[in-house]
Amino acid sequence: MVTISIIGSGNVAQHLADAFAGKDAISLEQVFSRNVANIPTSIPKEKIIYNYSELKEVDLYIIAVSDSAIAEVSSKIPFSEKLVVHTSGSQSIGILDDKNRKGVFYPLQTFTKNKPVDFGTIPICIESEFSDDYQLLELVAKSISAHPYAIHSAQRRALHVAAVFVNNFTNHLYKIAADICAESKIPFEILKPLIAETADKIMVLSPSDAQTGPAKRNDINTIQTHLEFLQADNLKNIYKTLTQSIIDDGKKL
Amino acid sequence: MVTISIIGSGNVAQHLADAFAGKDAISLEQVFSRNVANIPTSIPKEKIIYNYSELKEVDLYIIAVSDSAIAEVSSKIPFSEKLVVHTSGSQSIGILDDKNRKGVFYPLQTFTKNKPVDFGTIPICIESEFSDDYQLLELVAKSISAHPYAIHSAQRRALHVAAVFVNNFTNHLYKIAADICAESKIPFEILKPLIAETADKIMVLSPSDAQTGPAKRNDINTIQTHLEFLQADNLKNIYKTLTQSIIDDGKKL
Repeated sequence: MVTISIIGSGNVAQHLADAFAGKDAISLEQVFSRNVANIPTSIPKEKIIYNYSELKEVDLYIIAVSDSAIAEVSSKIPFSEKLVVHTSGSQSIGILDDKNRKGVFYPLQTFTKNKPVDFGTIPICIESEFSDDYQLLELVAKSISAHPYAIHSAQRRALHVAAVFVNNFTNHLYKIAADICAESKIPFEILKPLIAETADKIMVLSPSDAQTGPAKRNDINTIQTHLEFLQADNLKNIYKTLTQSIIDDGKKL
Repeated sequence: MVTISIIGSGNVAQHLADAFAGKDAISLEQVFSRNVANIPTSIPKEKIIYNYSELKEVDLYIIAVSDSAIAEVSSKIPFSEKLVVHTSGSQSIGILDDKNRKGVFYPLQTFTKNKPVDFGTIPICIESEFSDDYQLLELVAKSISAHPYAIHSAQRRALHVAAVFVNNFTNHLYKIAADICAESKIPFEILKPLIAETADKIMVLSPSDAQTGPAKRNDINTIQTHLEFLQADNLKNIYKTLTQSIIDDGKKL
């Protein structure tokens, strides 16, 4: 059995704590929180601590805090030669304090408060200094049915940028569409099947093969009509930039 | 029973023909095609015609051809005072020839060759000159379990632009992410659960509430790191444009 303590109480910490609960291969020993209100209700009170001095010795410390706090938190763990990992997509393994064995355990998913996620579909990007530690992290990932991937820091940086495109930016396009609907008194609901199918297509087709629309067809008339419809400079600019990028991509093929 | 003929043999025509097959309330009489190779195999050969002169009188003619061909096709229907609709998101009802009763039957979905769609989840945007025709189109939509919405031409134009954002542009963001992964030798598979969850979140949260990431947090350090990572001017430009738009949105709240 792997003994684990989680440091942090945000979305990632909470979803991990919930995923570890009741798993035979894992014993979640403690959850460190600066904020009592954030602690998931599934964690027994006696396991919650508020001071680093209360941290017990375990096999694995998972630091799930904001990027800017990782270095400081890792320096406050009152042990050495232990396995300490962070869960960040954008921070290198080297940001962790040198006194412990470093690793990364990055679940590539968007976590929403109060919306359960199925860890069975989540990739976990793993990195470690030592191969024994890699095997332990792999075992932890598998014990919550997640898919472990060996991803080094440079790859993880690329992946984090890619994730911003498919998650943050995509969601912003949904937001723009919702605004357009609201202005024309159209229920946003009407776009949801299209949003779902657009994501679903990618499961069977490459994004290149799935591309359709006026930019792909180089349909200048429709593009012009759309640009005339969009009043805000900001939206015109986004429309033009993405349309040009699709047209340029077509030329490369 | 409503008798229907479809003019066209592209993706929309084929998916509609497949959806109509075997429905008690609908009799698909004929499918007009310029291209024999495109005809769905589910259509009996005797129903396929290649000349307008072979068109029989039916209750409803559905023109499912490219936008630029709609006007011409509608003028070639050898009848008058019949109900003739097109299936385009971007064309007004007025593009149809005046000799027949005009309407629009626009399924708001992305259709992929050989990928079945569940019409039960598809919104159909309906418009007509006469209320009796609206009721007939509503009945046709419901008979294939689709959701009819009354959407006039100006709303449909807005909806078509919104659809470009959530489908064409979103898919292009997937393409960019796939390119980033390929360059760093990361399997694109690893992003698919995130893509699926990003779309799924929107089913329960508004896009504003679902927004996360460095732009939303105004995390200048991460944004700077990402811009340094992106070598191509084109990608830097898309990143900057969408990031600024998310930041500006945050200021409006």
